[in-house]
Amino acid sequence: MTGIHDSSELCGDDCDYPTELALRTILLPRDTNAQGTIFGGVILAHIDLAGVVPVRKLNPARRFVTVAMNEIVFHEPVFVGDLCSFYAQVCKVGRTSVQVKVLVKVQRKDDSDGEEIRVTEAEVTYVAVDENRRPVPVLPASRR
Amino acid sequence: MTGIHDSSELCGDDCDYPTELALRTILLPRDTNAQGTIFGGVILAHIDLAGVVPVRKLNPARRFVTVAMNEIVFHEPVFVGDLCSFYAQVCKVGRTSVQVKVLVKVQRKDDSDGEEIRVTEAEVTYVAVDENRRPVPVLPASRR
Amino acid sequence: MTGIHDSSELCGDDCDYPTELALRTILLPRDTNAQGTIFGGVILAHIDLAGVVPVRKLNPARRFVTVAMNEIVFHEPVFVGDLCSFYAQVCKVGRTSVQVKVLVKVQRKDDSDGEEIRVTEAEVTYVAVDENRRPVPVLPASRR
Amino acid sequence: MTGIHDSSELCGDDCDYPTELALRTILLPRDTNAQGTIFGGVILAHIDLAGVVPVRKLNPARRFVTVAMNEIVFHEPVFVGDLCSFYAQVCKVGRTSVQVKVLVKVQRKDDSDGEEIRVTEAEVTYVAVDENRRPVPVLPASRR
Amino acid sequence: MTGIHDSSELCGDDCDYPTELALRTILLPRDTNAQGTIFGGVILAHIDLAGVVPVRKLNPARRFVTVAMNEIVFHEPVFVGDLCSFYAQVCKVGRTSVQVKVLVKVQRKDDSDGEEIRVTEAEVTYVAVDENRRPVPVLPASRR
Amino acid sequence: MTGIHDSSELCGDDCDYPTELALRTILLPRDTNAQGTIFGGVILAHIDLAGVVPVRKLNPARRFVTVAMNEIVFHEPVFVGDLCSFYAQVCKVGRTSVQVKVLVKVQRKDDSDGEEIRVTEAEVTYVAVDENRRPVPVLPASRR
Repeated sequence: MTGIHDSSELCGDDCDYPTELALRTILLPRDTNAQGTIFGGVILAHIDLAGVVPVRKLNPARRFVTVAMNEIVFHEPVFVGDLCSFYAQVCKVGRTSVQVKVLVKVQRKDDSDGEEIRVTEAEVTYVAVDENRRPVPVLPASRR
Repeated sequence: MTGIHDSSELCGDDCDYPTELALRTILLPRDTNAQGTIFGGVILAHIDLAGVVPVRKLNPARRFVTVAMNEIVFHEPVFVGDLCSFYAQVCKVGRTSVQVKVLVKVQRKDDSDGEEIRVTEAEVTYVAVDENRRPVPVLPASRR
Repeated sequence: MTGIHDSSELCGDDCDYPTELALRTILLPRDTNAQGTIFGGVILAHIDLAGVVPVRKLNPARRFVTVAMNEIVFHEPVFVGDLCSFYAQVCKVGRTSVQVKVLVKVQRKDDSDGEEIRVTEAEVTYVAVDENRRPVPVLPASRR
Repeated sequence: MTGIHDSSELCGDDCDYPTELALRTILLPRDTNAQGTIFGGVILAHIDLAGVVPVRKLNPARRFVTVAMNEIVFHEPVFVGDLCSFYAQVCKVGRTSVQVKVLVKVQRKDDSDGEEIRVTEAEVTYVAVDENRRPVPVLPASRR
Repeated sequence: MTGIHDSSELCGDDCDYPTELALRTILLPRDTNAQGTIFGGVILAHIDLAGVVPVRKLNPARRFVTVAMNEIVFHEPVFVGDLCSFYAQVCKVGRTSVQVKVLVKVQRKDDSDGEEIRVTEAEVTYVAVDENRRPVPVLPASRR
Repeated sequence: MTGIHDSSELCGDDCDYPTELALRTILLPRDTNAQGTIFGGVILAHIDLAGVVPVRKLNPARRFVTVAMNEIVFHEPVFVGDLCSFYAQVCKVGRTSVQVKVLVKVQRKDDSDGEEIRVTEAEVTYVAVDENRRPVPVLPASRR
């Protein structure tokens, strides 16, 4: 069923953080590449935004910036009209950084059984920064 | 908590269709109006897409077009960086048309308790059409 | 002829406010939906902007926000390259709110007689607000 | 008053073609340049579209492509929220080409007297082409 | 070979300023016009940005605004996926204005010999302005 | 000086493929994130396009799709108005895949010495595919 998947798909079984539906969108012709499928750059932009969704819950007062992305794999193309869901899970909380796993799944527009297909995945690292972009602790002192 | 709300918020208590998180997005400076808040037109565009999410599950083989929107109310502004969720529920399935209620809620970017605030709502009517845009039954004969 | 239509098409015969060509545009492939016609959301965004054109003439010093939209009807699809005109007419001026009717007509790209076809219509309500988004009178004291 | 101006502003007094309001739009923050005013490139894109509006009335069956632009002058900046009108007038119809003058005027967002200010002007040349982009006569044989 | 061309292609043999690759991009379906080729307005927007690249090197402390464009010629269409290069050369430095020539060349997506084809050219005039948009000298006193 | 850098910055000293200026752009307010700097997703989209520039020179008849990205590091923010250059170098050509290194450097808008600052880097893997998206050899038989 849509949106149900065991968390081992993301960080792995021993991760305590919840998996959540961070973003969900339907992409349009303006998001296509020269080959008529959804441009990978558009997917990457959504991944960057999706990863920050669980991160800012850790400490809503903090400002986070993306410092790294890794292990981005494009398994399948995304088509115009697909319902495209970005699941995210915090994997590791360091002193000033947080690592998140983002999994992208789609329901094809005309697919009668509504199955979600894994299309892309990525690992994103965010750093908590102050107004001068210097790293600061992710968590408030009381929760460290 | 995020995403949890009783269905009476949408079509009302006596509606049998499920409420679902149809779309979720974070809006950016490119989505703002002259006043610096998110442009209502951008919200409306997402509502139009969101409503079709539960509709096409009724019959994935059908093509649906938007024919009407009503009772759109903008309760509160949406700000850059808000996590903006579009909940949708089918309210009524006619022979060739489907009525959907869409409710838009946001989590403010810096809000520490992560509460969702109702910002906009709308009622959208879609019609199932054939390749010449003539109305056709929403449901296959077997399910009518 | 283009742009000529009797005002009964908008608010009705007994409305004293003028009908005006609020916005006019030609839409491009980037404005299409998965079906290749112009995305309804793009039309709605233009309607929201078009309605405010006659409203801000009532009192240019005021800031107006959209609070409601109703009776949006999509009669016909809009195609890439159509000349798309948004006519707007103030229907009712309340103490802090203004109701506007917007009518969208297109000239098809290859149509030899240049006839305008009614494609969409909507009723939009704007409220005059101060810098804290609290309702204020639409008209200056001298004109109330 | 808005939209009223003598035709000598465009091609000059001895031009027989009518001046028309080809396009009208309100530009948003997404259309700004690094200085916060409307990006000239966005204005140019609208000029290119505006000029073709009177041209395609000459012969709606023809396809026209832009081959040249000249005498583009940016007199004044355009600001977010300005009502931006593109007036166009055919100046000269050649065998396979048409020359058009486009004049851009704005009403400033908060301007109480609604005066239109001339901000940009340009001269655009279009050529009628067949499906292989080879020049063909602008007018059908019967009207040449 | 890509990017190699004698400077006589731009301002002419007697111009002392260097020609440089100011911008380079690959355009996508969202940049197309109703005919499926790249919209001229998108090319013009890039030309406006490209011309300022060599200009701001003359005096990085200055703010420049576009005041005029001339002799824009569209020789050939640009297609989705073409590698589109904008070469720019300062032609003339006046007291408060600078004239730049911009030449646009593309490598077709599937072209096996990678030859660059001249598609568009333009002449752009920028003026150095102070914070009130009043003309100021392009060069600092020491270099005049 | 702009555009000059030793190739050891990309794949390393022992790489035989040339480094080239694949894309260059100036980013605008519409490309910003909620913090007012350029949105990382926009940079990633350009990296995806930039990497394919040297790849398609290997075999212009082939169609390439992005299958993976790795070691994306965001060193410094990019600001509105920066001249943003994407350098790309093929690092490894496998039977059906090609690995490319992309380095992003900017010249700050007001920087008087025009120095380029390294802001982002990434490694992208493309696969040559046939019309059914099945992997095919990168190089034609004659060059393998």
